[in-house]
Amino acid sequence: MAVVGAGLAGLTAARELQAAGRSVVVLDARDRAGGRVLSEPGPDGAVFELGAQFVGPGQHRIAALARSLGVDTFPTHSAGLNVFEYRGALHRFRGLAPRVSPAALLDTARAQAKLERMARRVPIEAPWEARRAEEWDGQTFGTWVEQNTSTAGARTFFALAAQAVFSVEPEELSLLHVLFYAHSAGGLATLLDTERGAQEEHFDGGAALVPALLAESLGERVVLEAPVRRVGAAEGGVTVSADGLEVRAVRVVVAVPPALCERIAFDPSLPGRRAQLHQRMAHGAVAKCVALYPEPFWRDEGLTGQAASDRGPVGATFDVSPRSGRPGMLLGFVEGRHARGMELLPSEERRRLALESFARLFGERALRPEAYAERFWAEEEWSRGCYGGFFGPGGWTAYGPALREPVGRVHWAGTETSPVWMGYMDGAVRSGERAAREVLRALG
Amino acid sequence: MAVVGAGLAGLTAARELQAAGRSVVVLDARDRAGGRVLSEPGPDGAVFELGAQFVGPGQHRIAALARSLGVDTFPTHSAGLNVFEYRGALHRFRGLAPRVSPAALLDTARAQAKLERMARRVPIEAPWEARRAEEWDGQTFGTWVEQNTSTAGARTFFALAAQAVFSVEPEELSLLHVLFYAHSAGGLATLLDTERGAQEEHFDGGAALVPALLAESLGERVVLEAPVRRVGAAEGGVTVSADGLEVRAVRVVVAVPPALCERIAFDPSLPGRRAQLHQRMAHGAVAKCVALYPEPFWRDEGLTGQAASDRGPVGATFDVSPRSGRPGMLLGFVEGRHARGMELLPSEERRRLALESFARLFGERALRPEAYAERFWAEEEWSRGCYGGFFGPGGWTAYGPALREPVGRVHWAGTETSPVWMGYMDGAVRSGERAAREVLRALG
Repeated sequence: MAVVGAGLAGLTAARELQAAGRSVVVLDARDRAGGRVLSEPGPDGAVFELGAQFVGPGQHRIAALARSLGVDTFPTHSAGLNVFEYRGALHRFRGLAPRVSPAALLDTARAQAKLERMARRVPIEAPWEARRAEEWDGQTFGTWVEQNTSTAGARTFFALAAQAVFSVEPEELSLLHVLFYAHSAGGLATLLDTERGAQEEHFDGGAALVPALLAESLGERVVLEAPVRRVGAAEGGVTVSADGLEVRAVRVVVAVPPALCERIAFDPSLPGRRAQLHQRMAHGAVAKCVALYPEPFWRDEGLTGQAASDRGPVGATFDVSPRSGRPGMLLGFVEGRHARGMELLPSEERRRLALESFARLFGERALRPEAYAERFWAEEEWSRGCYGGFFGPGGWTAYGPALREPVGRVHWAGTETSPVWMGYMDGAVRSGERAAREVLRALG
Repeated sequence: MAVVGAGLAGLTAARELQAAGRSVVVLDARDRAGGRVLSEPGPDGAVFELGAQFVGPGQHRIAALARSLGVDTFPTHSAGLNVFEYRGALHRFRGLAPRVSPAALLDTARAQAKLERMARRVPIEAPWEARRAEEWDGQTFGTWVEQNTSTAGARTFFALAAQAVFSVEPEELSLLHVLFYAHSAGGLATLLDTERGAQEEHFDGGAALVPALLAESLGERVVLEAPVRRVGAAEGGVTVSADGLEVRAVRVVVAVPPALCERIAFDPSLPGRRAQLHQRMAHGAVAKCVALYPEPFWRDEGLTGQAASDRGPVGATFDVSPRSGRPGMLLGFVEGRHARGMELLPSEERRRLALESFARLFGERALRPEAYAERFWAEEEWSRGCYGGFFGPGGWTAYGPALREPVGRVHWAGTETSPVWMGYMDGAVRSGERAAREVLRALG
C-alpha cells in the first residue's frame, strides 16, 4: 500500500494498514514528517510550536494517538484576565466575549446563538444535504454577519473569530462552511474557547512529537524528500512516482490537502468534479510568531496571556509557556489580511511588528524577547497556507460530494476530508483511520 | 525566450518576441496548439467549434490577429425571434430580455442599469482600488441579485446570465468580479448580446484556425506534448523543464491560467501571495454540445436559433451554421450546475439530454442530427474547466495585485491577466502582447 503525505493523516493511515498486516510505504516531499505540525527547538530545551498545537474536548482520536505514543498534554494557561484591543483602547475581561458595550455583547450573543442553532442543522457527513444548504452556501459569512448584527462590536467579534478559526476574512467564507465547521467541532463556542474549547491543552514537548514518534514506529516505511509527481494506474494496482523513487501498490491513500493534489499528475486523469474540487479549497493565510522571555511576565499582572486585537497584525495571542511555566512563551497569530500584508516584509520588520503587537497588549517587556521564531505558512512550498482548505460560496453544494469519494484505487485522506474536527489534528487522524478502513474494506 | 502554453496568449507573446528579434520556444502539454480554442472536423467539411468561438465589438486585438492571418469572420445568425423556456412554457421574443411579465422586465432593467453604473466605477487595471471594492468583493453576485430584485423573472435572468457569461452559479461569484468583468468587456449588455455584443460574429472555418496558423508561422519553435513540470532559476536566466526536454532562457512567459500554474514546480518557490492566488481562481464548468442537421430548420420558423432555458441542461443555444447556412448547426451551452450533473453520465445519455433540450426549444427535428459533438471542459486535463478562472468573494481585493506582477524572470500571460476582455480570446491576445512588452522592456 502507498500513502502520499507523512502528516498525521497519512501516518495514521499507514499505521492502521500496517496493523492490519499490509505492507506500506509513505512518501513525503519534505525532509521531515508532520506536515502542518511543526515544533522547532529553541534555547535551553524550549520548543517553538510553529504549526498545529492545541487540542481540546471531543478530540478523542488525536488524544488516543498521543496517549499511545506516550505524549502528554497539559492545560493552556488560562488563569486571569484576557485582553482585548478595540478601537485603540485596551479592555481586560473574563471569558470569551469582551464587554465593550452591553449592546454589542447582547448583539454578539444573539447572533452567536442563531449561528449555533443553524450549525446543528448541517449534517456533518453531507453538508450539502442541509435543508437550507443552497441558501447558506449562496452567501458569504460576511454578508450574514452584516445582516444579522447591528453593532460594530459584534461585527468586529465575528471578523476576529473568522480570522482566528479560518485564518481568512469573513467575506471569503461560505456561510455553510462556517456552520459545517462549527458543527464538526461541536459548536462555535468550542472552536473559540480555550478552557473547554479547541485551545484547551497543548502537548508536552511539542505537538510534533506525535507525528515524529509515529513516523519512527514506521521506520524505513516512511520516505522523506520524495515529492510525488504522478499516480498512474498499473495492472492490478497503481504506480506512485516520486523524485528518484517509484512504488507499486495495490491502492494509494493521498493524504495531502485538495489544493496540493493538483500537483500530482493522475493517469488516467481524474473526473472533472474531483479536479475542479482542487481549485475550490483555497488555504487560509496565517503566521505563528512566538517570543520567548525569561518568565511569563504577564501572569504577574493577572493576565492569561490571551488577547485579541482589531488592529493587528497579531490578531490573537496565547501563553504557550511549557508546563513548568519557565521560560515564558507568547504566541501570536497573524491571520488573513494581516498575514498577506506582513509576509511581504523583510524578516526584521516582521519581527518588529509582531513584538510591537505583543507590547501594546502586554507591556514594553514584550519588546525584548530572548528568542523569537515565526512561520508564514503561505510561504511553505508543501503547505501553501494554513490552517487548511476552506470552501467559499457554492463550494460545498457543488463539490462537497467529491471530497471523500475514492477514484478507482485512489483514496483521499487529510483533515479537510474529516466530518469531525475538520481542519484540526483530530480530523487528520480520523481521516487516516477512515481511509485505512476504506482500503481494507475494498481489499476484502 | 521560453513560453509555457501554446494558447492564443502564449503564441501571441512568442510572435511578438520573435518579431523583436528574440529567439523563442513555446512548450505545450497538448498534442495541438490552441488551448481552450478547439475546432474539430465534422462531416463534409463542417467544423465543430468546441471551444472559444465568438468575437464581438471592441475585441480589436483578436480581430487584428485574425485579419493578419487571413481568417475571416461572419455574423452569428440573428434574424428572427429568440426562444425562452421559462417555468415549463416557451416564449418567443426579440432582443435580450424576454417579456415574461412587465414587472419582471422592469425589475431586470432597473437592476441591470444599476450593475452597469457600478461596473463603470471599477478600474479595470486595478479592481481592488474601486472605492467600494471591499464591500463589493465581500458578497456574492447571488446575494446582490437577491437584494436588488423583487421578481422571480429577474432572478432567473441574472442566474442564466451568470451561467452564460461565467459558467458558474451566481453564488460562486464575487460581485466585484462580475462588475470588473462587465467593465472589462465594455458593459454587461455587451457580454450578453449577440448583435453588437460578445457573440456577434464567429470565424469562417473555425476559431482554431487562428492559433493553428499562428503556431504554423512559429514552426519548430512550438513544441507540443511537452508538459512543463519545472521552472528553475539558472545563472542569468531560467531553466524550463518539460517531459523529455529542457530549455534555457533569459526569461519565461507562463501563459496558462493561474489554477494550472500550480502544476509547475517553481524553484525558488513562489511568494505566498502568488501561490495562494493559484488556489483562488477556480474555473467554470461548461460543455459545448453541437448538433449538425441538413439545414437550419429553425430559420424556416422565423427563429434565430438563440434560446435560453431555466430548465436545462442546455441553458443557451446559438445557430452556428457556417456562412453558407448549410448544413444547419445548433450549439448548446451546458453550464454551471447543469454541467456538473451531466458530466458524470455516460456519453449516450449526455447526447440524449442535449438533443432533448434542443427539441423542446426548436421542435422534434432536433432529435435526429446527422452528427453530434460535445466537449466537457472540466474533463480536459490541460484546461480543467472553462471559460476561465474567476474570483469568488475576497479574491480580487486580497490577491488581485499578484495576477500580473512578474516574479523574478517569470512573467504571466493568459486571458485571466487581461484588464480588457478578460476571459475572452481578445484578452488572451492582449495578455500575450503585454507580457512580450514586459519582457522586452526588462531586457532593455
